[in-house]
Amino acid sequence: MNIVIVGATGAVGREMIECLKDFPLDKLRLVASSRSVGKKIGELVCEEISEKIFEESDIALFSAGSELSKEWRERVVAADCLMIDNSSAFRYDDDVPLVVPEINASAARNHKGVIANPNCTTAIAAVVLWPLHKAFALKKVIISTYQATSGAGAAGMNELLDQTEIALNGGEASCEVFDHAIPFNVIPHIDKFQENGYTKEEMKVAWETAKIFGTEIPLSCTAVRIPTLRAHCESIVIECEKVVSVEAAKEVLEAAEGVKLVELPMPINATGEYDVEVGRIRRNLVFGENGLEFFLCGDQLLKGAALNAVQIA
Amino acid sequence: MNIVIVGATGAVGREMIECLKDFPLDKLRLVASSRSVGKKIGELVCEEISEKIFEESDIALFSAGSELSKEWRERVVAADCLMIDNSSAFRYDDDVPLVVPEINASAARNHKGVIANPNCTTAIAAVVLWPLHKAFALKKVIISTYQATSGAGAAGMNELLDQTEIALNGGEASCEVFDHAIPFNVIPHIDKFQENGYTKEEMKVAWETAKIFGTEIPLSCTAVRIPTLRAHCESIVIECEKVVSVEAAKEVLEAAEGVKLVELPMPINATGEYDVEVGRIRRNLVFGENGLEFFLCGDQLLKGAALNAVQIA
Repeated sequence: MNIVIVGATGAVGREMIECLKDFPLDKLRLVASSRSVGKKIGELVCEEISEKIFEESDIALFSAGSELSKEWRERVVAADCLMIDNSSAFRYDDDVPLVVPEINASAARNHKGVIANPNCTTAIAAVVLWPLHKAFALKKVIISTYQATSGAGAAGMNELLDQTEIALNGGEASCEVFDHAIPFNVIPHIDKFQENGYTKEEMKVAWETAKIFGTEIPLSCTAVRIPTLRAHCESIVIECEKVVSVEAAKEVLEAAEGVKLVELPMPINATGEYDVEVGRIRRNLVFGENGLEFFLCGDQLLKGAALNAVQIA
Repeated sequence: MNIVIVGATGAVGREMIECLKDFPLDKLRLVASSRSVGKKIGELVCEEISEKIFEESDIALFSAGSELSKEWRERVVAADCLMIDNSSAFRYDDDVPLVVPEINASAARNHKGVIANPNCTTAIAAVVLWPLHKAFALKKVIISTYQATSGAGAAGMNELLDQTEIALNGGEASCEVFDHAIPFNVIPHIDKFQENGYTKEEMKVAWETAKIFGTEIPLSCTAVRIPTLRAHCESIVIECEKVVSVEAAKEVLEAAEGVKLVELPMPINATGEYDVEVGRIRRNLVFGENGLEFFLCGDQLLKGAALNAVQIA
């Protein structure tokens, strides 16, 4: 299998290279923006994007933003190269499957040349919510997130590190990636505001979960950026159609693929891990015996992006 | 009025001194632990704790931990000095009013020598939830918190600053105040675990809100420590008995005491502010027209502790 990564020097692109280590690869090629062409990552040299590369590849993993994905979609498909796209460009298109392999791998087989990778916050929650949905039938889902700066790529992480150093030395840094200072702060705003008062990041979780699950479950999300580097956390409360005990939920999650039960899900442990950590599972005090609440943490560059794309491939 | 602050050198004690600047004071005295006796804060010298100090004071603001409050309660009351206690020692005692002045100031008048100050997370949420409860009758409350290190006092803030510097330089710091590394991390665990899987910090919010409101509203909380210095944030979803529109909720909150409507409540703005910032008010997608969700941020050393105690006084 010949694979090309488009956006290879980005935070997700670099993780894709790592995730492909155990993949049945014949040839891996890297595409980067013109200023990175010629740059070496390991043994591989970054190339300029071209139709020829797609003609010579079986699968293209795109992670270089919506604009580039839109610009190249037709030519990639025409070259008979399967496009697996990490951007939000095609996620809501009817002819593009949106896939989390643990949940709807079969949907990937009906592709028409493009398969979309979900938003990171969605993917991490979905692998935990899906087995619970199958066992107890979800009725309501309420999510509050604790999202790392790597959600905004390597530039986001660098802004946190650089600005933190400046803040510790009493200085005031300028904001470039984020709209507000991120060190020692909390920003309850990610992506554009929608008419209903939610942000696009928050609505993505609702829209994408419905598409991946193949059913609409009332779901609300508050998406919040916090000063961590990597791995998103989510505090989740669910109400189920069926009665759900903590023990039964733990049994279901222990058997679930891509999920790891821990006492305290935390970024310092979940970073670099393929599985999504889930813990603090308890009977919710508001929804009675049909309610459950828990906390999860997953590396959004891996399960939330690179790993999921490679699993689709 | 003669006032004494017990625990004057702590993070809350120091804020109490500031909050008393506009108070009709005759004399202010400071009590500190033996190693700080003789230390000056501004013009005032820290004294050792003694019955004589309470005999000469009208009100004692205690913020030096539950043990000291329990040890001295009887002697303070016997000295005819009103004890306003910031610890959790007496909050659930039937003969001790638990007071947030904007909500139940009248309860303070029925004291028997001791008035309790609520937990910081509770106080910040309560000033926002109470006017909404009066207007729309709360039916369910679901909270996820983003709590600053100053919730663990000045030592907590110092641990964040010191460990962050070490982390930036590639080192690994030791944890003393927190059980896990706090720089660039999220710790979904504050205070002791209870039998029901919640932590004591989480249950405090449920127990104390019920006592302050004088009514039990089903409420669940997930309390999470994040790497911020000061000001707690909370993501809150409510279901009301009555239909609630965003406009009606904003009107109610605009008229509420101790609350400030903003676009994005954030620690960088709320730190040092008396009012609790609330924003991101929107119709919740799960509870339909009876549901609302919002984000708030309040300086937990002020409204969550020192300011509330001084308001009670």
